[in-house]
Amino acid sequence: MAKAKNLVVAQSGGPSPVINNSLRGLVEAARGYPQIGTIYAGWHGIEGVLKEELLDLSGQPPEEISLLRATPAAGSIGTCRYKLLEKNKEDFDRAIEVLKAHDVGYLFYIGGNDSMDTAHKMSVVAAERGLDLVATGVPKTIDNDVGDSEFKIIDHTPGYGSVARYWACGVLGANEENAGSSPADPVLVMQAMGRKIGFIPAAARLADPERRMPLQIYMAESKVTLEQLAANVNDQLKRDGRCMVVVSEGFDVGKFGERRDSFGHVQFGSSETTVEQTVVNYLNQAGLATRGAARGNVPGTDQRHAMIYASHTDLEEAYQLGLKATLVALNDGGGFMSTILREPGAAYRVRYDKVPLQLVANSERKFPQAWIAPSRCDVTDDFVRYARPLIGDEWVALPIENGVPRFARLEKTFAAKKCKAYVPMAYRK
Amino acid sequence: MAKAKNLVVAQSGGPSPVINNSLRGLVEAARGYPQIGTIYAGWHGIEGVLKEELLDLSGQPPEEISLLRATPAAGSIGTCRYKLLEKNKEDFDRAIEVLKAHDVGYLFYIGGNDSMDTAHKMSVVAAERGLDLVATGVPKTIDNDVGDSEFKIIDHTPGYGSVARYWACGVLGANEENAGSSPADPVLVMQAMGRKIGFIPAAARLADPERRMPLQIYMAESKVTLEQLAANVNDQLKRDGRCMVVVSEGFDVGKFGERRDSFGHVQFGSSETTVEQTVVNYLNQAGLATRGAARGNVPGTDQRHAMIYASHTDLEEAYQLGLKATLVALNDGGGFMSTILREPGAAYRVRYDKVPLQLVANSERKFPQAWIAPSRCDVTDDFVRYARPLIGDEWVALPIENGVPRFARLEKTFAAKKCKAYVPMAYRK
Repeated sequence: MAKAKNLVVAQSGGPSPVINNSLRGLVEAARGYPQIGTIYAGWHGIEGVLKEELLDLSGQPPEEISLLRATPAAGSIGTCRYKLLEKNKEDFDRAIEVLKAHDVGYLFYIGGNDSMDTAHKMSVVAAERGLDLVATGVPKTIDNDVGDSEFKIIDHTPGYGSVARYWACGVLGANEENAGSSPADPVLVMQAMGRKIGFIPAAARLADPERRMPLQIYMAESKVTLEQLAANVNDQLKRDGRCMVVVSEGFDVGKFGERRDSFGHVQFGSSETTVEQTVVNYLNQAGLATRGAARGNVPGTDQRHAMIYASHTDLEEAYQLGLKATLVALNDGGGFMSTILREPGAAYRVRYDKVPLQLVANSERKFPQAWIAPSRCDVTDDFVRYARPLIGDEWVALPIENGVPRFARLEKTFAAKKCKAYVPMAYRK
Repeated sequence: MAKAKNLVVAQSGGPSPVINNSLRGLVEAARGYPQIGTIYAGWHGIEGVLKEELLDLSGQPPEEISLLRATPAAGSIGTCRYKLLEKNKEDFDRAIEVLKAHDVGYLFYIGGNDSMDTAHKMSVVAAERGLDLVATGVPKTIDNDVGDSEFKIIDHTPGYGSVARYWACGVLGANEENAGSSPADPVLVMQAMGRKIGFIPAAARLADPERRMPLQIYMAESKVTLEQLAANVNDQLKRDGRCMVVVSEGFDVGKFGERRDSFGHVQFGSSETTVEQTVVNYLNQAGLATRGAARGNVPGTDQRHAMIYASHTDLEEAYQLGLKATLVALNDGGGFMSTILREPGAAYRVRYDKVPLQLVANSERKFPQAWIAPSRCDVTDDFVRYARPLIGDEWVALPIENGVPRFARLEKTFAAKKCKAYVPMAYRK
């Protein structure tokens, strides 16, 4: 039998409430196979590989690895927004140098389309440099934008179901607020994540599939003007005396002092103002059809780290996708992402499979136009049928210590450094 | 035995996650006494009394009244920000007219200092007009600003413990986010409610009593400039590479396009921008000591309607205060608010008592200066000892239906109108 090779797992992009459960699935599966030696995490993703900061996961107490199930976001091993650019050959050379120095034979990348592209490129470069590297992807994104618009590459991405549940529960609570406080605050505007794709704001509909609430949903894809939005809100105020608006951070309100990250993506949380604020100000300046004022919430990153809202189904699926990725890497070799596909039929059933990284990297999912209601400020029942099973049917159990959740506490034990210090190319002056 | 008199309960001001449990305690106690006839709620508080919109609570299915326990905010009976002004004699006359017409002998007011003042005035005016009215208060406010600074009138207000728990849990999740995403987003600014009093932002410390996290807390009382705040943040960045900032909506950042309500209070959620945004923009424009940008969350009203974060202790105490108010009204007559006092000793124990409405109305609680740490951006262990028991030790059980919480659904059954239509004075052109 061949000598065991070490494993590195890295994350990229914005986190999710269940990302650590994919990590846990991967670690719990990998530690059972003799082909796999020490399991490391790139501390803050590929940045940790470049800087040779490899967190030792094999040496962590098993109970802390177990607690990853109930630990949201990426504090345990870190994430980053660092992009390995093809032109930055030195970064690739360095990554291979570090992986070779630590006898790494398995690279797992937990992330979205960009990450699958990076994983694919790493495996190609490794082969060119004489490193036998099994590169495998695990899907993750709250936006549900990994894969194709036909749901054949992947049905949905882990993370989405939990953020969908956040919004379903959140809007239900907001409805009690808005109904109660409507004499003074008849309009409540809430800003949802998801950039240019509307799956997250759309999930607000799960709070009220029967459409009993005065709820309007504006996605980036709605293509509605602020004027039309205000007219819609005032119509609702005339009918119901109150209105809740869920608006995507990617909804077009013109300029709002956008700040961009190294991928060129707008950093909505760091910009000079928000879409929510722009909508609230527009409504208040234009004037409401009732007494009182519009007000707003921007939950921001809370959407992706409020662990108590995690979907039980999502949590389980995230785990299974981590586990499946390990099995695919061992049985089928590199170049694949583990995936989840929905079985036909009325009852919700899924199966886990694999799909080539390259196929994922080159795909682009859009929110189906057919799921946007004719009003442009709602989604259809077909969307509800798609999304409803993803939020599950129960609260997840979260252990409590001293009155607050007890999250995993990994020891900051790193592999001994073997290479020279290195400054990632994008970080040089 | 005297003929039974009807009861009206009304709420005022911003809601809380546990306000409905005080209502439930009151209703469940009141319906057991023959002295009390039909139980009505003023639909949207005193506005419902003025408009003769009296929701029939006696006729509601008992299981829906039970569900008030798990139902946040004020959607069930409504709240308002309408102030009965002494100069607006007509409003008082009208309120008395409606109460007389519906044979009301008991008026319960759930609210803060202003509400206790209103309840007191109503009982005085009723006596002048020959209406024998028992007016009783039930304390409610997430801000914990009811009563005195010495905690002798009341130890803490129902609602506060739940919002404190929201922040304790929320900051813990935010810490996983900030730790994970710090290469791109090293600073996370979160805006807390509480207006000019710092109990809510202070509760963020309950996420980390041992001070392991890079967490800074800015209350209105901190009296720190934006320049000093930025210097503190940059010091933290140099030490830890990341920083979380919890800032009160009442923290002084200069002008931010404030909008005010009929009480003259700033409506933070409806203003042109937010304290959080001002802080984020200041930090990003001044420049951070590390790579990346500051970003922010404004959870807004979510703080007071996210039922899943409700403190078990708070929930129980809110119920007991509703129940106690009913007993006080029946045994001691009008003019009191039910109150909660802490027993001396290390273990957390409380007792319920009564306190004159007038004493509450004329009191003003401030956040104890001694509980602000010398750094001005933290609180002391004495505050932690005060607040820790209030968040309880477990998650509340919330019934789920179709994947989301099942809140109470009261029937909109109103008392038949007996008076002429009336437009409240403040609502006239």
